Formats: sequence, C-alpha cells, structure tokens
Amino acid sequence: MTLTNLPAGPRSYDLVVVGAGPGGFDAATEAAALGIKVALVEKDLLGGTCLNVGCIPTKLYLGATSPVEDLAAQVKAKIATGNIEIDFEALCTKKDRFTGATRKAMAQKLKALNIDFYHAAAKIIEQGKVEVSHHNETAVLEYKNLVLATGSHPTVFPGLEPDNETVLDNTGFLALTEMTKSLLVIGAGFIGLEMAQIAHRTGTEITVVDALDRIAMYEDPEVSKTLHSVFKRNKWNIKLGVKVKSVTAENGKAVLRTEDGEEIIADKALIAVGRRPNSKDLGLENCGASTVGPGFVKINENLEAAPNVYAIGDLNGNVLLAHAASHQAGYVVRRITGKDKGPYTHAPVPSILYGSPETMRVGLMVKDLEGKGEIKVSSFPLVANPIAQSYASTQGFVKVVWLDDKVAGITAVGHHVSGFTTAAAMIVQEAWTEEDLHKVIFPHPSLDEALLGALKADKQLPK
Amino acid sequence: MTLTNLPAGPRSYDLVVVGAGPGGFDAATEAAALGIKVALVEKDLLGGTCLNVGCIPTKLYLGATSPVEDLAAQVKAKIATGNIEIDFEALCTKKDRFTGATRKAMAQKLKALNIDFYHAAAKIIEQGKVEVSHHNETAVLEYKNLVLATGSHPTVFPGLEPDNETVLDNTGFLALTEMTKSLLVIGAGFIGLEMAQIAHRTGTEITVVDALDRIAMYEDPEVSKTLHSVFKRNKWNIKLGVKVKSVTAENGKAVLRTEDGEEIIADKALIAVGRRPNSKDLGLENCGASTVGPGFVKINENLEAAPNVYAIGDLNGNVLLAHAASHQAGYVVRRITGKDKGPYTHAPVPSILYGSPETMRVGLMVKDLEGKGEIKVSSFPLVANPIAQSYASTQGFVKVVWLDDKVAGITAVGHHVSGFTTAAAMIVQEAWTEEDLHKVIFPHPSLDEALLGALKADKQLPK
Repeated sequence: MTLTNLPAGPRSYDLVVVGAGPGGFDAATEAAALGIKVALVEKDLLGGTCLNVGCIPTKLYLGATSPVEDLAAQVKAKIATGNIEIDFEALCTKKDRFTGATRKAMAQKLKALNIDFYHAAAKIIEQGKVEVSHHNETAVLEYKNLVLATGSHPTVFPGLEPDNETVLDNTGFLALTEMTKSLLVIGAGFIGLEMAQIAHRTGTEITVVDALDRIAMYEDPEVSKTLHSVFKRNKWNIKLGVKVKSVTAENGKAVLRTEDGEEIIADKALIAVGRRPNSKDLGLENCGASTVGPGFVKINENLEAAPNVYAIGDLNGNVLLAHAASHQAGYVVRRITGKDKGPYTHAPVPSILYGSPETMRVGLMVKDLEGKGEIKVSSFPLVANPIAQSYASTQGFVKVVWLDDKVAGITAVGHHVSGFTTAAAMIVQEAWTEEDLHKVIFPHPSLDEALLGALKADKQLPK
Repeated sequence: MTLTNLPAGPRSYDLVVVGAGPGGFDAATEAAALGIKVALVEKDLLGGTCLNVGCIPTKLYLGATSPVEDLAAQVKAKIATGNIEIDFEALCTKKDRFTGATRKAMAQKLKALNIDFYHAAAKIIEQGKVEVSHHNETAVLEYKNLVLATGSHPTVFPGLEPDNETVLDNTGFLALTEMTKSLLVIGAGFIGLEMAQIAHRTGTEITVVDALDRIAMYEDPEVSKTLHSVFKRNKWNIKLGVKVKSVTAENGKAVLRTEDGEEIIADKALIAVGRRPNSKDLGLENCGASTVGPGFVKINENLEAAPNVYAIGDLNGNVLLAHAASHQAGYVVRRITGKDKGPYTHAPVPSILYGSPETMRVGLMVKDLEGKGEIKVSSFPLVANPIAQSYASTQGFVKVVWLDDKVAGITAVGHHVSGFTTAAAMIVQEAWTEEDLHKVIFPHPSLDEALLGALKADKQLPK
C-alpha cells in the first residue's frame, strides 16, 4: 500500500509502530485487537528479517534437509541403506512461496484489524510526530504512543563487504537457487552454523573460521565442544582463532586473507559476524532518545526510549531473538492499554540452534552466576535415552544449572533437543527445586526424560 | 540371581516390591536410595513389558524407520528424491542389544543400592509375608510394606489366540527378524497403530480392523479422523465396525473370519485388543485385597489394596502407561518414608502415539467434562507453523480444551507433536488462564508455537 492509496483524513493514532518484524507486527495487531487505533510503518517486507531472510527460511531449509542427516545416522548404525538428493531450487521456491503466503496472511490480518499500513520509511520529527516517506511522497503521523521495532542488519566490517554473488550475507545465502560446491563461513555463531549445516546436507564442502577459540561461543563450553566434535566428524574444516583481514571475490572465487598472510579459497563465502541495530535515520534525537554501543536504543525499565516511545526487539540490544521481541511487544501493549504498570519482567528467553545436533539454552549458565550463590550442575547423557538411541544420534547431554538448589538454567545439545525447550523455559521460570520434580508426569518414553534425568541427577560443583 | 545364590539370614524387609517394570523398579530404587531395606521380586526380565516387549522396542523401531516417512514427505513435496531400505534384522539386533544393556545397567543399580533381587514368582501367604518361588525352590520374605507392580499382559479372546508364528501378539511382533509382506492388525489402539506403522515403513501391506467405528478411540474424535486420513493416504486398508469371530493360522497364512462370514487373509496377523492385569496367583485374598473388572486390584485413595500393601501401575487399572506407574511409585516411596501423608494426587498423565503423524494428549477432553462447567475449545492448524512446513507434514492441529476459562486438557496430532507434551502437561497441571500466556516465552520458530497459537486462538463452543 503506497501513501497515496490511503484515505484522506487526520493521521492521528493511539499507537504508531515502526517495523513489521515479529515485534512490531505483534505490537500492532495485539493493540488493534484491543480496539485502539494503530498505524504500522514498514519500508521493506512484512515479517522483517525473521520471516524473509532469517529464522523462518533457515528452519524451512533445515527441516526439509533433515532426512539427509537422519538417514546418515541410521546408515552409520548399519540399520539402513539409501540415498537422498535435495532439489535445492525447489526448496528455494517452496521457501519463497511460504514466506509470500505468510506475508499475505499478515496483510489480511492488518486489514481485518483496521490497522493503517504505511509502506514507507519513518523518522521522528518531534515528540508526538513521525514523518513517513516513500519515494517522493511524505505524510506526518501523530502518535500518542510509538513503538520502534526496526530490528537489525548484518554487521559489515571493512574488507568483508558482501557482494551477494560470491561473498554472501544471510540475504545472499537464502537467495541462492543452487548450492555451492564449497562454502567458507566466517563466524561460528547461530547464523553461520545453521547455514553451514544446510550447505553440508546438500553435499557442500564446509570451512568455518572464527576469531574466537571455540564455536557457538554463546553456549556452555561443553555444548560448544560437542558441536565441534560432531561437525569435525562431518569432515568440516574448522579454524579457530583466525584473524580475518579480508574476504573478497576474485575471479569468481571467495578469497579470505588472514592477518598472518594465510589464504583460504572457496567457491562462496558467507559472512556471519553478528548484527547491528537499525537505529540510524530514525530521528531518535528529535524525541530525546539516544543510543548506546553500536547503536542500540537506550531504554528504561519500561522499555521506553523517551516518554511513550518504546524500543523493542533487536533495536534495544537486550536479546536479539524474535520471540524476545514478541514478548516485549506484548508487554508494551499491556502497558499502553493500562493492563500492566511495569516494569517489564524479563521472562527466561530460550535460544535454539537448529540442525543435527540441535542446542537449546534457557536461563542462566554457570558463567552468568558466579558470585551469586551456591552453583551446582547436574547432567544426563543422551546415550541413556531410548529416543536418542532410536535416532542413532546419542552424542549430547542435558545440563541443569542450580543456584542455591533452585533451577537457574538449562542447556542441552543433541538430536531434537529443541523439543523440550518450552518445558525447560517453564521450569527455569518457576525456579524448580527437587520438590517440584514429582508435580509433573513426563511422558515415557520420550526425549524429555533426558531433561528429567538431568533434573534428578546428582548435583556437582561446576568444573 | 536364583534363590540359592542369596545369602542366608533373615528375609525381613522394610519394602518388598513385586514386579520390576517401570513402576516396581522405580519404587525399589527410590526407596533403597533413601536407606531402607528393599527386596525386588521379578519372575521374568528386569524392565518388564515396557523395556522388553513394549514401549521401548516399539520406539526404537519407530525412530530408526522415521527417515522413511520423512523422506516420503519431502519427495511428495518435490523437494527431495531418493530411497531408504531398512535392514530389519539389524534393527532387531540393535533392539536386543539396547534392551540387554539397559537390563544390565538396571541390575548394576540394584546391586549398588544393596537391593536383594529375587528372580522368582511371588505370592502373598498372609499379611506381612510373601512366598517367592523359582523352579522347586521357595523362600518366605517378611515385609513391612509391599508394592505390587506386576503389570499386565495382552488380552486373549477365544478364537484369537496367538501362536506367535503367524498370529502374533506384541511379543511375537517384536521378535520378528524379518518383516512380513502383509500384516493384518486386529485392534486400532496405540499398540496396533504403532506396530502397523513400523511394518508400513518396511514396505508391508497393512490391513487394520477394529470392532469400533473409529481408530484410536481413546483420542479426541478429530484426532482419530486426522490419523485415519493419513493412514488411508498411506494406502492402508482400514475396516471398522468389524465383528471378529476368529483369527487362525492356516497353511502358513493368518485368516480372520468375521461374524458375517467374511474372510481376510494376510501373511501374519497382530492381535492388539487390549491388556489385562497380572493379578492372578498373587494371593491377594491372603492379605484382604480384592479385584474389580477384569482383575484390576482395588485400591484406596493412598493406592493401598490392603494396609501397607500398594498396587501401582497397570495392575490397578488407573492408567495403563509406564510413566503413570513411575509417578505412583514415587508417591508410595514418599508415603512409606513419611514424606507424603496422601492421598495420592493424580497429576495429568500425558499419552503419546508415536509415528507419522504423532498424537499427544494430556488432561481432560470435551467428553470427560460434560456437565462440569462451561466447556470451550480453541485450536491451531499445523499448516500455519513453519516447522511443520519444513517437514512438509502440515496435516494436523493442536486443540486446547477449556473449563471455565482454565486449560483442562490439550491434544494434538501431527508430525513431531510429541515434542511439546511435557510443556502441555505443565500447562494443564497449572490450569493456565489467558493471563498466564505471557508468563513464558515460547521459542521462535518452533513447533511449540502451534501450542501457543491454540492457547491464544478464539475459544469456541465444542461442536
């Protein structure tokens, strides 16, 4: 919908939301469902990074290619023989069709809720007013409340600029209609490791480099170790502690040069070295808001960047995950409709790495708790779980972190461990003690029993 | 360990447990871990039906063969091509190896906890005394507390007696080292449907007959309908409302004859028409205990069949699921060690059908709640979930049953829906209202969001 298509009349709203990713879309629709007048402004696609070039396409690719790994595990266990070929172009088309259908459903929901949608960029011009612009057209929207949910973009370091032909970012990778023969992944975080697994499953030769001394550095060190061991067995070339000087396209190849003068060459490279907030050009200074660090919008305990101006999701840098943005959106809507006086309560934010194996983490890990009380850990190996045995994928474990005999955090690595993430989030949220263990009946047999096993296991001091 | 191998001396115990399935084993080990003197009596194998000829082998088979269905879904979606052959003999060997290793680990645990193990049958001879016998040897054990956890066996109707060559029960099916070309399954409950799926995945032609008018009759009718639709698409021959007169082996074939004179012939038949408690020969009358219905031991609100004599698990007919037995075991141990005065609190018992699709159910369904208050249902279709999309398995849904605006039950059918069973059990246990929805952050994207979607969906009167 362009600006000229909008009905004439006052552009005055109870709530203006900028950004239609998971946080912004949820804020707009939940508020409108409560009967307040809402405008949603998005300069790009409905659904934001997550739907279009982030978590959703990645999981579509990982789910669709998972039989490759599942079969490989059974072949290795000598239970099955066979082969699987992925039609990568068909998968890409399916992804485009699904994200397109989802955007269409989102647009219908906006319409059904009488939300005015502006396909435009937004800039605060003074407290209470946002200018929206698309090509040469502009309009001014008046707001009582403003939610900024503009998300983030891939970090670009000098010398590592993607051309999205040979040197790719997430957008370039997900636009490929043919998988490359060899892929060099720079950055062993979530995005790099998930995309590397997709490529691996289509037969691509994988090299992963990272400046740090372990992969998945946000995870518990033992989780990183298990991941590393599985990926090495997959014949990935993993190079740690690498100081990357440049990654450039040369004669159709991606060439990485290190500070030490080493060269690594692959058909394509994927740059996945973190994300930066989209806070430039928002006119933050015009309402008294400010930023910290690489541009994260500074907020108070009510998620306010200025009075009645909220910054949620990746933009505030709190947790860069879609479901954290949605949870913050829910709070802001409750707050502006008078149902929650605040402050914002941080529920435990679960985090999942999909693939083979998967990782899940929720709550606090040992390193987060040092000095806060008596820390213990208890764990359970997946090899003792019959469902893990059935998948012939028994490497991995569940680990529970206890603070003063209450569950403070849970993490796991292994096949399908994402399955018990919500249960784990609830257990952390409720800070279970041993006494709570018999409140709930875990199904038998199930992978969830590995979580129960870890909760019941002897507690030990962390190593 | 035979009786003669036991040390001489008084055979007097704080607790004697009869039956070493999930309920009995947990009762014995949890009690011994608290320092009380325990004897465990089992006439057959450690682990009981569940480990040896029930849920564990079945899930090992289903997990190992799951790539066949997962690939088929992607092939149908035109994302993949390929083929998978299952080496059924290797799978059977793996199963035997895993169950053997588990029994060994169980025996080691008994030893470590100083539990006296009697490989023997048990019979109460008077209140306070159990006679154990193995071949011609006997001994008398004195107990302060007795836990009866002898489980159940397959129901045998006249004319449908298995020979375990051509006409099989669960034990016969799981002993097959080669899968049959055609299988006739009598009984469309959990056991029949899971085993039929295993056979289907190895290329077996499947016929399922049931006396009732729908399959999976314990499930919500809409869940049954979805299962039926998927199995029909798998080209199963499903015959409902069939009155079976006999199933016999004739010239190496299984022949089913109906009351109406119809014949159905297959290479093998599987009889899965329910289970009966193992309560005969326990000497129940000698301690004042009695049975109801087909032999279920009658218990009071403390799970007692007589003073200090507890009957748990399948034997009391409460819920015939291993995890219900384990939960009851935990209660009995807390009770006899003075930690819980009772009565036994029934936590919601989750129930899962594994396969493709899976079903999960926990708490109460619409039919259980009639007349108890205002019943509403809310639901979410899997087709709208990106993880279901990624598996190319989008048929199915999650349904929440509300009683007076509190969650009373949750059920689902679809690929991998077992994954959120524990979370659902916790939500039912806590009887969530709409207000609880923002307490917990569900991971995004995840299949669990289909559960969240159902919790958030408009509530409607049940059809």
